[in-house]
Amino acid sequence: MTERLKLKTQGFCDIINITEKVSSVISKSKVQEGSVLVFVNGSTAGITTIEFEPGLESDLKKAFERLFPKSLEYAHNEKWGDGNGFSHVRASFLKPDLVIPIENGKILLGTWQQIVLVDFDNRPREREVIVSVK
Amino acid sequence: MTERLKLKTQGFCDIINITEKVSSVISKSKVQEGSVLVFVNGSTAGITTIEFEPGLESDLKKAFERLFPKSLEYAHNEKWGDGNGFSHVRASFLKPDLVIPIENGKILLGTWQQIVLVDFDNRPREREVIVSVK
Amino acid sequence: MTERLKLKTQGFCDIINITEKVSSVISKSKVQEGSVLVFVNGSTAGITTIEFEPGLESDLKKAFERLFPKSLEYAHNEKWGDGNGFSHVRASFLKPDLVIPIENGKILLGTWQQIVLVDFDNRPREREVIVSVK
Repeated sequence: MTERLKLKTQGFCDIINITEKVSSVISKSKVQEGSVLVFVNGSTAGITTIEFEPGLESDLKKAFERLFPKSLEYAHNEKWGDGNGFSHVRASFLKPDLVIPIENGKILLGTWQQIVLVDFDNRPREREVIVSVK
Repeated sequence: MTERLKLKTQGFCDIINITEKVSSVISKSKVQEGSVLVFVNGSTAGITTIEFEPGLESDLKKAFERLFPKSLEYAHNEKWGDGNGFSHVRASFLKPDLVIPIENGKILLGTWQQIVLVDFDNRPREREVIVSVK
Repeated sequence: MTERLKLKTQGFCDIINITEKVSSVISKSKVQEGSVLVFVNGSTAGITTIEFEPGLESDLKKAFERLFPKSLEYAHNEKWGDGNGFSHVRASFLKPDLVIPIENGKILLGTWQQIVLVDFDNRPREREVIVSVK
């Protein structure tokens, strides 16, 4: 069973908690034992887990800016002019996929572990996240 | 087939080789063709592969400290006071999941490629790693 | 269905677009709904996605060199003398696996999202990438 989540994001390392939406797809699928694949089909966003609270949202954003500054020169920008070279490089590091086990119909996340979409683009976007249960 | 590995760690980027334990679960499962999902259900740990030898253990720890220093100010620490903001950020970068193919009942790792749990927390922990074969 | 791609690389963060080869395996498998696991069985290479164009190839290589410089001292090098400590550390950060959903027999990548092997080793290599569809 595969469903698509439609999400509006602000870009610039916007971090969106999608745990409840993923859990709903699992419930609907009636899969008891298996796994869920969460995948964002874009080249300027990624998927990971985090304890979703405002402090860590800010800390994760700062880490991405420290390691992959917007202000560096990116060869991508020189050619394409869309100014989001930093977004692409961040996304390639974080990667677009995450797989989580399911047991007794429940996703096996830790208590403080939420699934997030991170949108690295340099403008608001409408994103599609694919959730595939089996 | 899903099993849980129970592991004691020291935290602070402790790197634990879990390759043999994962292989044992695969043997027990009798799965011949498929894949194994390795997942740590916590927000301050991650899973990856490495050539497991003391030099690289030290090199990987140094890289995490260089890129995500413990001594930076983390907003997470200001609010929650548990001092492990660096642990959370590192874990979100490394991510908690890894999927490896199985063929003829064997895990298809390279000769020098081992599966490791990396515990980023700032204290010893008892960790649960979920190993799901199908 | 599991196939092996054989690839010649130049090392030093060589980025090889394997999207068409992965798509061919999916076509051959006749799987309509499922996922594909792409896995490199080596400890000095990784798999991710990127908009594959020369600017971003250069930007990604620069980011790896900035974050994990070749010229640092690596304990791995002191003991093993093969000079590729930086390659191992980069590979452990990027990780060797990627899972992508399949629907109606098609891989659900974004329009500008390609699958790439990144070879971090310090010499040309012949690599094996495992593509497993189910």
